[in-house]
Amino acid sequence: MKDTTAKQALLEAGRRFIITKGYNHTGLQEVLQAAGVPKGSFYHYFTSKEDFGMHVLNRYVETHDALLGRLLADETLTPLMRLRRYFEVSCAHIVALQHSEGCMVGNLSQELADQNQAFRVRLAQILESWSDRLAECLTQAQQAGEIPADLDPRLTAEFCLNSWEGAILRAKVMKSAAPLDTFLHLIFDSLLRH
Amino acid sequence: MKDTTAKQALLEAGRRFIITKGYNHTGLQEVLQAAGVPKGSFYHYFTSKEDFGMHVLNRYVETHDALLGRLLADETLTPLMRLRRYFEVSCAHIVALQHSEGCMVGNLSQELADQNQAFRVRLAQILESWSDRLAECLTQAQQAGEIPADLDPRLTAEFCLNSWEGAILRAKVMKSAAPLDTFLHLIFDSLLRH
Repeated sequence: MKDTTAKQALLEAGRRFIITKGYNHTGLQEVLQAAGVPKGSFYHYFTSKEDFGMHVLNRYVETHDALLGRLLADETLTPLMRLRRYFEVSCAHIVALQHSEGCMVGNLSQELADQNQAFRVRLAQILESWSDRLAECLTQAQQAGEIPADLDPRLTAEFCLNSWEGAILRAKVMKSAAPLDTFLHLIFDSLLRH
Repeated sequence: MKDTTAKQALLEAGRRFIITKGYNHTGLQEVLQAAGVPKGSFYHYFTSKEDFGMHVLNRYVETHDALLGRLLADETLTPLMRLRRYFEVSCAHIVALQHSEGCMVGNLSQELADQNQAFRVRLAQILESWSDRLAECLTQAQQAGEIPADLDPRLTAEFCLNSWEGAILRAKVMKSAAPLDTFLHLIFDSLLRH
């Protein structure tokens, strides 16, 4: 197995275990076995389980950020339509997974915020960067007169992001898309409506 | 140690470990040690770790439900003021804990929804019962003309609850009350405002 292939196989196996079972409950042994990589190789790529977990998290975030960036840059839609489209695409993704997994950033925040300072700081940074992106889009929507003038785009972005993480969590526990639909309805048909 | 005292000590130690470290990561050995109870006694009170975890969860919910029930029944306040008061009291509680712990129901939903069907069903049931209470209060607020007539109280209650769980999660990862304040502001000064 080539070097890069083994590393990718480890990261992909890590993603599957961590998003389903959480970080603490994921054993390196099962990751190695699923990836078909010998133990000695693991420490060739990663210095520790924490370093590995951080790489898995960063890879997840890169994939998500590419999607978010692409959708929010789509100039065939108005800023508000872009924002709605982002949440609709995310919703379809969650439904396709039968409401399992949830958001890795939300999952790890829940699990590690009180346990691991390095993860806590990185997760807070990721969420802030997502919030920045949403705030930028909401500012454009406000400039275009699409949302009420009295809403603070920054606070509204924070609220949307946190509420979305809460909706994903509820969808996971209910095994239903209803919380995601309710989010879309209350945010776009009430809060952001003139 | 009396029978009921040992059981209470186990439940209290279980609460502390489970809310901080999660269910999977909590070892019975550390719970027994913290409670000062011998291992043999554990199985006198609980049939398994799952049974123990379920008792810890139910005890947490009973305490929370007593608070929720008391605040939402406070007839010295209008329905909307009662609802706001409930979130403000919860917020103060989280701030007092320096944004650690979070909500046990949110934590366990995140951790166990894809792993343990008995917990998933119980957690979904708890969240539904909380949503019912909020919906009842919002219905009264609507009848009193305190919130817009076009909001569906049931959907709005679901949205408030899920968004609140999301705000608690974000507060935990940011170690800041800002997400809780933003929730209060967007819900009460925008969404529910005429």
